[in-house]
Amino acid sequence: MRKQSEKEFVKDITKMEDDFAKWYTDVIKKTDLVDYSPVKGFMVIKPYGYAIWEGIQTFLDRRFKETGHQNVYFPLLIPESLLNKEKEHVEGFAPEVAWVTHGGEEELSERLCIRPTSETIVCSMYSKWLTSYRELPYLNNQWCSVVRWEKATRPFLRTSEFLWQEGHTLHETAAQAQEETLKMLNIYIEMSENLLAIPMVAGRKSEREKFAGAKATYTIEALMHDGKALQSGTSHNLAQHFTTAFDITFQGRTGELEYPHQTSWGVSTRLIGGVIMVHSDNRGLVLPPRLAPTQVVIVPIAQKKEGVLEHVSVLYEELKAAGVRVKLDDSTEYSPGWKFNEYEMKGVPIRLEVGPRDIENGVMMAARRDTLEKVVLEREGATENVKRLLNIIHDDMLEKARKNRDDQTFVIDSYESFKIKMIESPGFAKTMWCGDEACEASVKEETGVTIRCIPFEQENLGDTCPFCGKQAKHMVYMAKAY
Amino acid sequence: MRKQSEKEFVKDITKMEDDFAKWYTDVIKKTDLVDYSPVKGFMVIKPYGYAIWEGIQTFLDRRFKETGHQNVYFPLLIPESLLNKEKEHVEGFAPEVAWVTHGGEEELSERLCIRPTSETIVCSMYSKWLTSYRELPYLNNQWCSVVRWEKATRPFLRTSEFLWQEGHTLHETAAQAQEETLKMLNIYIEMSENLLAIPMVAGRKSEREKFAGAKATYTIEALMHDGKALQSGTSHNLAQHFTTAFDITFQGRTGELEYPHQTSWGVSTRLIGGVIMVHSDNRGLVLPPRLAPTQVVIVPIAQKKEGVLEHVSVLYEELKAAGVRVKLDDSTEYSPGWKFNEYEMKGVPIRLEVGPRDIENGVMMAARRDTLEKVVLEREGATENVKRLLNIIHDDMLEKARKNRDDQTFVIDSYESFKIKMIESPGFAKTMWCGDEACEASVKEETGVTIRCIPFEQENLGDTCPFCGKQAKHMVYMAKAY
Ligand SMILES: [Zn+2]
Ligand SMILES: [Zn+2]
Repeated sequence: MRKQSEKEFVKDITKMEDDFAKWYTDVIKKTDLVDYSPVKGFMVIKPYGYAIWEGIQTFLDRRFKETGHQNVYFPLLIPESLLNKEKEHVEGFAPEVAWVTHGGEEELSERLCIRPTSETIVCSMYSKWLTSYRELPYLNNQWCSVVRWEKATRPFLRTSEFLWQEGHTLHETAAQAQEETLKMLNIYIEMSENLLAIPMVAGRKSEREKFAGAKATYTIEALMHDGKALQSGTSHNLAQHFTTAFDITFQGRTGELEYPHQTSWGVSTRLIGGVIMVHSDNRGLVLPPRLAPTQVVIVPIAQKKEGVLEHVSVLYEELKAAGVRVKLDDSTEYSPGWKFNEYEMKGVPIRLEVGPRDIENGVMMAARRDTLEKVVLEREGATENVKRLLNIIHDDMLEKARKNRDDQTFVIDSYESFKIKMIESPGFAKTMWCGDEACEASVKEETGVTIRCIPFEQENLGDTCPFCGKQAKHMVYMAKAY
Repeated sequence: MRKQSEKEFVKDITKMEDDFAKWYTDVIKKTDLVDYSPVKGFMVIKPYGYAIWEGIQTFLDRRFKETGHQNVYFPLLIPESLLNKEKEHVEGFAPEVAWVTHGGEEELSERLCIRPTSETIVCSMYSKWLTSYRELPYLNNQWCSVVRWEKATRPFLRTSEFLWQEGHTLHETAAQAQEETLKMLNIYIEMSENLLAIPMVAGRKSEREKFAGAKATYTIEALMHDGKALQSGTSHNLAQHFTTAFDITFQGRTGELEYPHQTSWGVSTRLIGGVIMVHSDNRGLVLPPRLAPTQVVIVPIAQKKEGVLEHVSVLYEELKAAGVRVKLDDSTEYSPGWKFNEYEMKGVPIRLEVGPRDIENGVMMAARRDTLEKVVLEREGATENVKRLLNIIHDDMLEKARKNRDDQTFVIDSYESFKIKMIESPGFAKTMWCGDEACEASVKEETGVTIRCIPFEQENLGDTCPFCGKQAKHMVYMAKAY
C-alpha cells in the first residue's frame, strides 16, 4: 500500500550533524506541522503548525491593538498599473508575482497580480480617504496571505505563498514615521524574546538589502543551529516615496497640502521555521513554553492501578482551570514509553509522569523537553509549580539560544580569515565595512555571504574595511542567510 | 478639491422607503465600514467593518474549538486538473473562477485557479494523509478569503472576493457526517441569535439550489427589511461524492478499504450585510450589543464644569475594567449634539450622557440606539446596570427582528396571489411544493422567486402544489433573495 510506505518514509529523524536540511524536513514532516501541496512551492499548514501560528497571531494582535492599531482587509488582487506606480517597488516585485489574466470565462483587459505585499493597493485607497492632518495617524494592519513566485522553496522558510501580517501607517511628520518604524520593530523583538525565546540582532539593512521602495528598512535577525541567519521581521520607513507616487495629500496645520510619511512592517509564518531551527534537536521539536500549543502532557503510569486515573483527572482539571494548555493522555492503546517518545518528538515542554508511588509521596515527575532532565514537583500547589517551571524553561531556552548565537559570533579582521571561517564554522561575522555597495556585492558574489544588518549597537573594530581596504564606516553583522 | 466633494456625496442617508438599495450603500459608506477598491467587485474592509467581522470570528472560532475543530491553512491556488475531478463541482464553479496563468516571468504549464472554495485541494491532501479509521474524524476549519468572479456586486452581500471560514471534515460513517452537518448548522443558528440578534429560518436546500457536489445542503435564511431573503450560512453533507472522486480511503474496522463521509460548512462577511439590512434604520447603523465594536459611548455634558470629566473618567475605567467595550468622547472639537448624531449613525447601542445634574442625582441618562428611548440608570452599580441594559437591547432587537420577519411571512395557496403579493409586499412565502425541479425552475424564471429552503419544521398547508397543481410533497419558504 502506497500510504503505508509514505508513512515510513520519515520514520526516523536524520541527525542534524549529518544533514541539517534533511533534519529540518524530517522534523516538520514527522511532527505534522506542514505538508507539500500539489502546487509546487505552496504548503499546507496542518493543525499543529497552524496552532503555533495562532500563538504568534494572538501575541502580536494584542500588542498591535494596545498600541492603537486597527485591523483592515485590502483586496487580494492589484491592477498591474498600480504595481507600476513606484519605480523601485515594481522593479523589486514584478519578477516574482503571479498574474491573473482571466476572470470567469473572460480575458481581463488589464492583468491583476496577486498581492506580493500591499503597499500599492493600500496607497491607492489612502489617497482617496485622507483629507486633513486631523485624521492622522492612520494605524492599520492586516492578517492575510501573500504570493511571491519562488524558484527554490522550503516549508515555512521560503514558500510561494505565506501567511503574514502587514502594517501600513501614515503620519504627519517624518519624526513620527521613524518613531513608528522603530516602535513596531521593538514589538517584534519583544515577541521574539518573550514568546519564541529567540534573541535577535536588530539593526538597519544596507541600501542594497532594503525593501523595494523604502527609505530605510530595519530588521531582526536570528541565528540558526547551522550558523545561517534568518531574517525574522522587518519594519520599513517608507518616507514619502509612495505617498508622492500615489499623490496622497492632506491639508496640514498651515493650510498647505502636504504628503504624509509612511511605514510598513511585517512578520510571517517564516518565524515558525526559525523556532524549529533555533531550539529543536535530533529527537524532534523543542517548543518554547509560551508558544507551545500543548504546554504540559500528563502521562499516567500504571494507570490501571486504583486511584491513578482519578488522581490525574483532578490534576488535569486543576491545570486547565488555571489556563495551562494541558493534555491528559490516558489512552490504553500505547505504552507510557511510546507516549514519552511521541510527546518528546512533538516538543511538548513538560511531561508529567504520575504513578501510584508518586501519588503516595504527593509528587509528580516532571520531564523537561529542553534539557531532558527530570524534576520532582510537589503535587500540592501543582498549578504554581508547573507555571514556575514553564517560566524557568522559557528563560533557560532563551539563554541557551543566546549562548549558541554568541558562540557562533566572531570578529573578522581579514577577508581571508572570513572566507575560511564561513566555510569551517559559519555564523555571525562582526566586521567593519566601508559602506560601499560595490564592495558588498562582490563579497556576496564571491562567498554567498550578505550583510544582515548594521546593528543599533555599534562597536569600533578597526579603521579599514577588511574586504576592500577602504576607510571603514559601519560595524555590520554578516552571514549566509535563508 | 476632489476629496471634499466626495466626502459630501454621502452627507445624508437616503430613506429606505424611498430607495432601499441606495439606503444600504449610503449606510455602509457613511459609517466607514467598507469602500470600493480599484478592481471592480472587490471591496476594502475598513477598521469599523473589520472589527464587526472580528466579533463574528471570535464567537465562531471559540465554538468550533469547543466542538473539537482545529484550524489549518490550505493553499490559495488550485490546479485546473484538481478542480475538474468532481463533475458537478466543476460545472458549478468553473464559470466563476479567476485564473492564474503566469508566475513571475514564466507562463505556467497548467492554469491555477484562485480557490472559490477549497473542497478539491482539501481532498487531494486528505487522500494522501488518511490511512485508518483510528484517525477519524478529521475536524478542520480555515479562515481565509475566496474569489468568485461576479458580474453584479454589492459590498458584503455579493463581492468577487470575500472573507469566510470553511470547515472540512471526514467521518467514518454516514450518520456521523449527517450529525456533524447539522451540528455546525446549529452553531450558526446559535451565533445568529445570540450574537447578531437575527432569527433564522433553517432547513434543507432543494436539489436545484444545493452546493455543487453535495448530497444535501442545509441553510439558514434571514429576511431583510425590504422583504428579500439572505442566505446566511450553509452546511453541506458531501457524503462520498468527493471522497470517491479523489480516492480518499481508509482501512475500516473490518480491515476493508472504505471511503469516508464528508462535510463542509461556511459563513462569510456577507453576514455583515445581513446585520445592516435587518436592524438598521434611516439614521444609520443599529448594531446588536454583543457584536458592536463599541457597546457604550460616554458623552459628558457641560464637561467644563468642575468634576464632570473626573466623574466620567472614573465611570469609563469602571466599565472598561468590567469588560464593556466602552469609549469616552471628551473631545472639545464638537458639541454633544454633534456627538449624539455621530454615534447614533455608527449604531453604538448605548449612549451615556452624564452632566452636573446627573452627577448630583447619582444617575446617568442612557439613550438606546435601537428604540431611541432614554432610560435613567443609577450610577451606583453602573457596570451591572449597563450590562443588564445591553442584554435587554439584545433581546428586544432579536424579538423585533422576529416580529418583522413574521409580519412579512405569509401563506400562499394560489400562484396568482403569490405573484401579486411578491410584488406588492414581498417577504417569505410559505407554501406547499410538488418537489419537481422543473416546476421550481419555471417559477423562478417567471417571478425571480426561489425556494429558500424546505424548513425542518414542516406544516401541512394543503395537498396540491399551487404552481403546477400536482401532489404537494413539502412545505417550503420562498422569497426573492440577495
Ligand atoms: Zn569595502
Ligand atoms: Zn409544482
